[in-house]
Amino acid sequence: MKHLLTLSELSLEEIALLLDEAEAFAKGKQWQPNKQVFVANLFFEPSTRTKCSFEVAERKLGLQPIPFDADMSSVQKGETLYDTIRTLESIGVQAVVIRHSMEQYFDSLRNGVNISIINAGDGCGHHPTQSLLDLMTIRQEFATFKGLTVAIVGDIRHSRVARSNAEVLTRLGANVLFSSPDEWKDETNRFGTYVDLDTAVKEADVMMLLRIQHERHGEQMGLTKEQYHETYGLTVEREKRMKRHSIILHPAPVNRDVEIAGSLVECERSRIFKQMENGVYVRMAVLKRAIESVEGGMMNGYYFKKWQMA
Amino acid sequence: MKHLLTLSELSLEEIALLLDEAEAFAKGKQWQPNKQVFVANLFFEPSTRTKCSFEVAERKLGLQPIPFDADMSSVQKGETLYDTIRTLESIGVQAVVIRHSMEQYFDSLRNGVNISIINAGDGCGHHPTQSLLDLMTIRQEFATFKGLTVAIVGDIRHSRVARSNAEVLTRLGANVLFSSPDEWKDETNRFGTYVDLDTAVKEADVMMLLRIQHERHGEQMGLTKEQYHETYGLTVEREKRMKRHSIILHPAPVNRDVEIAGSLVECERSRIFKQMENGVYVRMAVLKRAIESVEGGMMNGYYFKKWQMA
Amino acid sequence: MKHLLTLSELSLEEIALLLDEAEAFAKGKQWQPNKQVFVANLFFEPSTRTKCSFEVAERKLGLQPIPFDADMSSVQKGETLYDTIRTLESIGVQAVVIRHSMEQYFDSLRNGVNISIINAGDGCGHHPTQSLLDLMTIRQEFATFKGLTVAIVGDIRHSRVARSNAEVLTRLGANVLFSSPDEWKDETNRFGTYVDLDTAVKEADVMMLLRIQHERHGEQMGLTKEQYHETYGLTVEREKRMKRHSIILHPAPVNRDVEIAGSLVECERSRIFKQMENGVYVRMAVLKRAIESVEGGMMNGYYFKKWQMA
Repeated sequence: MKHLLTLSELSLEEIALLLDEAEAFAKGKQWQPNKQVFVANLFFEPSTRTKCSFEVAERKLGLQPIPFDADMSSVQKGETLYDTIRTLESIGVQAVVIRHSMEQYFDSLRNGVNISIINAGDGCGHHPTQSLLDLMTIRQEFATFKGLTVAIVGDIRHSRVARSNAEVLTRLGANVLFSSPDEWKDETNRFGTYVDLDTAVKEADVMMLLRIQHERHGEQMGLTKEQYHETYGLTVEREKRMKRHSIILHPAPVNRDVEIAGSLVECERSRIFKQMENGVYVRMAVLKRAIESVEGGMMNGYYFKKWQMA
Repeated sequence: MKHLLTLSELSLEEIALLLDEAEAFAKGKQWQPNKQVFVANLFFEPSTRTKCSFEVAERKLGLQPIPFDADMSSVQKGETLYDTIRTLESIGVQAVVIRHSMEQYFDSLRNGVNISIINAGDGCGHHPTQSLLDLMTIRQEFATFKGLTVAIVGDIRHSRVARSNAEVLTRLGANVLFSSPDEWKDETNRFGTYVDLDTAVKEADVMMLLRIQHERHGEQMGLTKEQYHETYGLTVEREKRMKRHSIILHPAPVNRDVEIAGSLVECERSRIFKQMENGVYVRMAVLKRAIESVEGGMMNGYYFKKWQMA
Repeated sequence: MKHLLTLSELSLEEIALLLDEAEAFAKGKQWQPNKQVFVANLFFEPSTRTKCSFEVAERKLGLQPIPFDADMSSVQKGETLYDTIRTLESIGVQAVVIRHSMEQYFDSLRNGVNISIINAGDGCGHHPTQSLLDLMTIRQEFATFKGLTVAIVGDIRHSRVARSNAEVLTRLGANVLFSSPDEWKDETNRFGTYVDLDTAVKEADVMMLLRIQHERHGEQMGLTKEQYHETYGLTVEREKRMKRHSIILHPAPVNRDVEIAGSLVECERSRIFKQMENGVYVRMAVLKRAIESVEGGMMNGYYFKKWQMA
């Protein structure tokens, strides 16, 4: 099997392959395994868009997602994640998509199971398919990452998006800026340079806004939503000072009028809904990779192609 | 796209078309889009029959419903309904079925999204597919609506069924009677005449019973279930005084021995389970209309038929 | 329709037929109805493996499971189970799989509905597909049941597995031993002989461990987990004293280091994950039986074969 746990584990060649595959799907490429393949989506934390996006991607590939309700499941009865996944493996599931609140939940699984694990978010850790869709959206715009300035703005410390993206963007040759209230700076993340928000606004080719994970956070700083927006958010006024061709990204769900003015969510330079669209295609690419690795493979030195290309 | 939000927005011609289509599906008509179509069922309030009925209708049309768990979703994180639906649109969903506790929730959506919205109940507002299945069931029995006497009995004020049905039945030429405890009369609904229950029983061709929405209501009147049933319910004794050919409808779920005697639920004149069966067919018709409007359409004056008829 | 409510209702011939069919599915047999068939899985109690196992089995047969969320459903509104099932029947569902906390919930249903009910667990009552998968796993190992010694160990009183298995294994000619703390002995179950754990370990061909249903139980005995494991669990040390060819079964989910040492869960004589794999095949056999009974049947003395065999 071939897990996708963090982007840091992938070479730039592997990342480029996934992005090329995703782009092919966006242009209408069809691919389906030639037999019935079962997958399961294990979301132990709430999510609309990531879960629905995987569900669409799976059906576009003709895969059969098995409903798994984390609330109703045996996990309530104290079953370990390992035993849950071995169970799914035993009943014929070939890949699992997991979101879990525990950082690095996959460390105990990666070598023990014969099933592909796709990480859809581990606590404040990683979210590789979100990073891939961000990369795909940026590449569609600028064709390259080299020399681009990408500003990541907001709650850097608690964001798996910031963690995954800063590392991979730096590897790809981009220049990463961070902008954040002091409380949310992340000294352990060495892949960006902290600047003030107005510098980020002026210099960025890509303004990557982060969601405020917990509305309480702002309040803990003693700020109202309005004050937060004025001080740390992308206001209508700041947007006017962005470079002509720069774009706005946001992993969503958006807190309108907090990290971004409501009227900017669908403005001309926003790619927020384009990101979601691209999310389906990168997930198709990731799922194809996970399933091919189970089904295909080398036998006696020959590659037995078990899958049809349409 | 073509929403279905309330029946009041549809002409009698449009309603007749939907009923004819539903009848064709009941008789075995097959229809499927010729490519993969994704839909999502967003039920923010509990429902067995409406949700399951849509799920069956969707699969009969070969559509692919994307699971959406309102409890686990980003709506918990404060996302607006608009952003949730734009997200679903971005990932390729073509129609959404929505039940929501807020009356007229769709007002803020109807012009902003490029996706068909099918209203499956908005607070105490409307429930158009329930009305359509009631109409279908009545038409199967009497072939016409003109001159029929339809009594709507129970909690008129809090019922979206009463609201939707009284208006459309009046437009179709039926004579609508209301019968209700004083506490539940709805002075804003001008499409019916209040009569006492025994008059309704005697005169109605169609006895349309409403569900007591909140069991507490009866208690607030100071009545036990038995007293409520005796005073305002369809008892075994009252059923005997109904016209020979009159029928009983109920939107279900039924409170047995409250609004209707348990032994009458499946009596000869009850069409309660027939209504449920018809519900699948009207929903197939409504879904077909919603999807054709997205996919088909006029181009350069020609109608490009993108769908196959089987 | 053909229900599957308890194994006690099946003859040994019927059981053998189901096991043969399951074995055929395990060996790759394909079978699908030749038209669209809807089923629903009604789980009113938590379950990962049983529900997921049915979901996989249904999809392997090409059936269409209709999502049914017991939490969100009308059951919350006080609807009876009978009315819920009649509703599903009305919208076209042909078989329902039910897990419910009430023992014998099916007594009020079995003659009133025209839909096949498959019992997936009724309170402390029965769990026939679990028994069938246990039988299948034992038969794969020993080819027969006659003369085998099967020890059922743990919370006999609250276990539907113990109840179902002891009866059917006795009928099949096996010798059943029970081993249990005094508090969990079940005097109403006359199909086994109580022995102490070390006798069971020494004599059993099949060690069938039961899950401690409620972690509290152990505490009520005034034992820590470690003490429970040492006194009543299959420890590493006890496993060494088992017969050379004896095997370990457990219905799962496992409480590691309580009823069984964590390191034994995947030991050589454990068939725990094999049981789960077999579960899919017995459920395919049970579903096929339920659906054939609805669709096929005798007409005018002729059997009209409506199903294709692949």
